Amino acid sequence: MKLDDTWFTEICEDAGSAFSLKITSKLHDEQTPYQRIEIYETQKYGKLMTIDGLVMLSSRDNFIYHEMLSHPVLFTHSDPKDVLIVGGGDCGTLLEVLKHQSVCKVQQVEIDERVTRLAEQYFPELCIANNDVRAEFIFEDAIKWVKGSKDARYDIIIVDSTDPVGPAEGLFTTAFFSECIRVLRPDGIIVQQSESPLIHGHIIKSMYVAMREAGFDNVQSVLFPQSVYPSGWWSATMASKNELLTEFREVDAKKKVFKTHYYNKDVHQGALNYPEFFSEYI
Amino acid sequence: MKLDDTWFTEICEDAGSAFSLKITSKLHDEQTPYQRIEIYETQKYGKLMTIDGLVMLSSRDNFIYHEMLSHPVLFTHSDPKDVLIVGGGDCGTLLEVLKHQSVCKVQQVEIDERVTRLAEQYFPELCIANNDVRAEFIFEDAIKWVKGSKDARYDIIIVDSTDPVGPAEGLFTTAFFSECIRVLRPDGIIVQQSESPLIHGHIIKSMYVAMREAGFDNVQSVLFPQSVYPSGWWSATMASKNELLTEFREVDAKKKVFKTHYYNKDVHQGALNYPEFFSEYI
Repeated sequence: MKLDDTWFTEICEDAGSAFSLKITSKLHDEQTPYQRIEIYETQKYGKLMTIDGLVMLSSRDNFIYHEMLSHPVLFTHSDPKDVLIVGGGDCGTLLEVLKHQSVCKVQQVEIDERVTRLAEQYFPELCIANNDVRAEFIFEDAIKWVKGSKDARYDIIIVDSTDPVGPAEGLFTTAFFSECIRVLRPDGIIVQQSESPLIHGHIIKSMYVAMREAGFDNVQSVLFPQSVYPSGWWSATMASKNELLTEFREVDAKKKVFKTHYYNKDVHQGALNYPEFFSEYI
Repeated sequence: MKLDDTWFTEICEDAGSAFSLKITSKLHDEQTPYQRIEIYETQKYGKLMTIDGLVMLSSRDNFIYHEMLSHPVLFTHSDPKDVLIVGGGDCGTLLEVLKHQSVCKVQQVEIDERVTRLAEQYFPELCIANNDVRAEFIFEDAIKWVKGSKDARYDIIIVDSTDPVGPAEGLFTTAFFSECIRVLRPDGIIVQQSESPLIHGHIIKSMYVAMREAGFDNVQSVLFPQSVYPSGWWSATMASKNELLTEFREVDAKKKVFKTHYYNKDVHQGALNYPEFFSEYI
């Protein structure tokens, strides 16, 4: 079966695989100082944002990624107040974080303001909390931002980045994690998107090593489906100095007062359970 | 990004999506009385079998599907002895079933003998237990086989079929499930591959209805990743007259004496936990 010009295709060289979505129109195409951002209307997946030809998110299934990047870490910390989001320009993670009433302040440091402006235009459902007084938008290099931050400043850092090539490469290093551990409070937790358990095991493994080298003694991934990313299976990895990451505020998660579409207490528990090959690998 | 002639592509019309694998050579192409079977060598996924242009399995990730179709149901039944596999011609499910020492007899009823013969040739690692004295191969229409079977004959029926179009359509009906309930013992359990939780909710929902109409009071799905199937996320659905399907022989699963690559006790528990949207849907 051949795909004609009405399809967007992303090739994953690592896996010798490709994922395509049927497009009905192209809504936007822009080269920013950092990257090329394109927005498409798809036939069945709602809107699609790509950066440098790689899928960032679709209207249809971004809820899984955004919920699993935020709620597990927020329900693992005992009382998360100050949150830093690194990247996250589409604001979907921010929306989930702001659902937690304990959170007093969220700083979102995204290098490319255009990502956020285009999200406001094409994914307004992800931006409905952008005017929340607790949210602060900072458009600059997050690595510089973290370097310039005071010690013990945050309870949680969420790294909602692109793949570890190009601008995001520096976010997967011991040097970056060492700065993160410094700006986190002693009971602070970092969580970072960490690619596919099936095809990016080597990236996850080296991330575990880098996190541990930086001084994070506890490292724990959560696994979840994500149909628009390579292999359709994705992960986020939490790390802490002292806090156990396999336990969380189950009672609070169970009686959460906000709505989710993927996350719940039982799904959180299940996402912590590693398949055999994954345990052996890491 | 365009895909040239070195890619195999499967389009999923339901989702307006497509999945492709980079091919290095075509190993076999055959029209049987039932279907067209093709075998490819892929760049990174090992061998690939397609039927009528749809992906059946790859060497790289079939372990997830085969383990999740067999071990959850086998560890849910208290003492599974007699097992019927409907379809399953590639023998991957059979291999997993035969790992259970309680199993005395497995009858595999596959309509197309050529699927099994080609699996023996191209996926020999899935066929290493085919000479087990407990395995019996029957090449005929499974719907007729079940109709002709005696009452209360099996402990477990595993329906390892293609999608509910063409030859497999009759396997997703109340009529078929009614025959299954008749040939199952009172504590018997059926499990059936049940498509993608994200994009085939309508199929899963109508399957639940058909199973309940047939007299299966308990219906429970397990969810798992499967990168070569549409959306990369798949399900199998168990049904029983009386037996609880959310509980299983956890101690036995934990101390299992055989090797798996995906399945373990904790993964089984996690696979039973429905995301919010899935609970609401069904």
